[in-house]
Amino acid sequence: MATLGAQLTRVADGEVTIELPFRADLTQQVGALHAGVTTAIADSAGGYAALTKMDEGADVLSAEFKVNLLAPAVGDRFVATGRVVKSGRTLTVVRGDVIAIAADGARREVLMMQGTMIVSPRAPA
Amino acid sequence: MATLGAQLTRVADGEVTIELPFRADLTQQVGALHAGVTTAIADSAGGYAALTKMDEGADVLSAEFKVNLLAPAVGDRFVATGRVVKSGRTLTVVRGDVIAIAADGARREVLMMQGTMIVSPRAPA
Amino acid sequence: MATLGAQLTRVADGEVTIELPFRADLTQQVGALHAGVTTAIADSAGGYAALTKMDEGADVLSAEFKVNLLAPAVGDRFVATGRVVKSGRTLTVVRGDVIAIAADGARREVLMMQGTMIVSPRAPA
Amino acid sequence: MATLGAQLTRVADGEVTIELPFRADLTQQVGALHAGVTTAIADSAGGYAALTKMDEGADVLSAEFKVNLLAPAVGDRFVATGRVVKSGRTLTVVRGDVIAIAADGARREVLMMQGTMIVSPRAPA
Repeated sequence: MATLGAQLTRVADGEVTIELPFRADLTQQVGALHAGVTTAIADSAGGYAALTKMDEGADVLSAEFKVNLLAPAVGDRFVATGRVVKSGRTLTVVRGDVIAIAADGARREVLMMQGTMIVSPRAPA
Repeated sequence: MATLGAQLTRVADGEVTIELPFRADLTQQVGALHAGVTTAIADSAGGYAALTKMDEGADVLSAEFKVNLLAPAVGDRFVATGRVVKSGRTLTVVRGDVIAIAADGARREVLMMQGTMIVSPRAPA
Repeated sequence: MATLGAQLTRVADGEVTIELPFRADLTQQVGALHAGVTTAIADSAGGYAALTKMDEGADVLSAEFKVNLLAPAVGDRFVATGRVVKSGRTLTVVRGDVIAIAADGARREVLMMQGTMIVSPRAPA
Repeated sequence: MATLGAQLTRVADGEVTIELPFRADLTQQVGALHAGVTTAIADSAGGYAALTKMDEGADVLSAEFKVNLLAPAVGDRFVATGRVVKSGRTLTVVRGDVIAIAADGARREVLMMQGTMIVSPRAPA
């Protein structure tokens, strides 16, 4: 996330928001952010949201996720939100989305995610 | 892909390979590449594979994809392969995977993808 | 849907609800409905929701969908809701869920879906 | 599966095949099997494949799966194959496909699946 220039802007119980300013070097052919970038911030937001439901010291890994790309990721900045849908002992199911915000404040949903986080067996002792 | 340092290493009819050397700045907490990075190269390999089935001048966008993360993306380099499963007029269904290759040559599948590419309506005229 | 005994109980713009009473012959090993059954009603609700956004006479097909199974589908009846997230010329992205309702009225989310519907090329003339 | 008239026709280590003859009452609008039916047999094949990798007495549940529908499920019979890609302590990742076989023997892939099975906490003692 640091490499991308993304920042955790809100952490609530079961819901986390990550923001990423536009960066020309992360674009693909048409001036939009690469799907890998918007996916990365959605996945991270989902992972951090799952973490809010876990015991201190636990760690999470993404087991799987699926994204639908709804519109080209064109905008001034991007806000990814991850939300816990169901938190279990082993698996936590999350939803996420990424909103593109234009310079004039106009908002557009660009990505929608559904995925599964797993408590990491490699959690720090 | 250039930002990541990834390279297109093989382009065949319906199958494309992308390679990415390990980069410490793309890792997450445990010395493994972030899922967003391995997803990005798998998605790109799938997109380029779809492109090999299209008319010249066409462009593709990812409509959606799903990944399962099979093992931490630890390795010396990473090879993503995208393969066309079904190519239609509008949609092309692809599969992909990412293999981590250790310094000693050991190979491990770290990511498996299934997705849909769509002929871009914003293709150059 | 008729074979399952499911009924369309609500049709609004972009949102459709399907209900299915419990049937012992559709269960799997543990007294819960088979995932194929809950998936079928979620997929159908998503397809009908997409249809509410289309021109009369059009038909839809599921291009792809992904489900997370959140809890065993145990209940007296099951309510699947499909909602359109984004409706485009060719593709319509939908979300869906299935709620199990117990005899005492207790509700539990058992399935969550995210998928893509496509205008059928085989629509009736 | 019994309700559908499906049969387990092959069980190997990590790979299982289920067959379903065509049934007019399981069709949707265009003489093709409903996506819920082909999904159900693919999911079941994946679950049984996962089971071949587990200890005796264990049980599996689908945690999540994603399907791409490649062609209308028109045919004389349908063969679903599930294959284990990675078998872990808690989660088993599977792939699956469904092939439609016409009366003249012609084969066509109609569905492709990728999913995750979990060892059931409700396994029989």
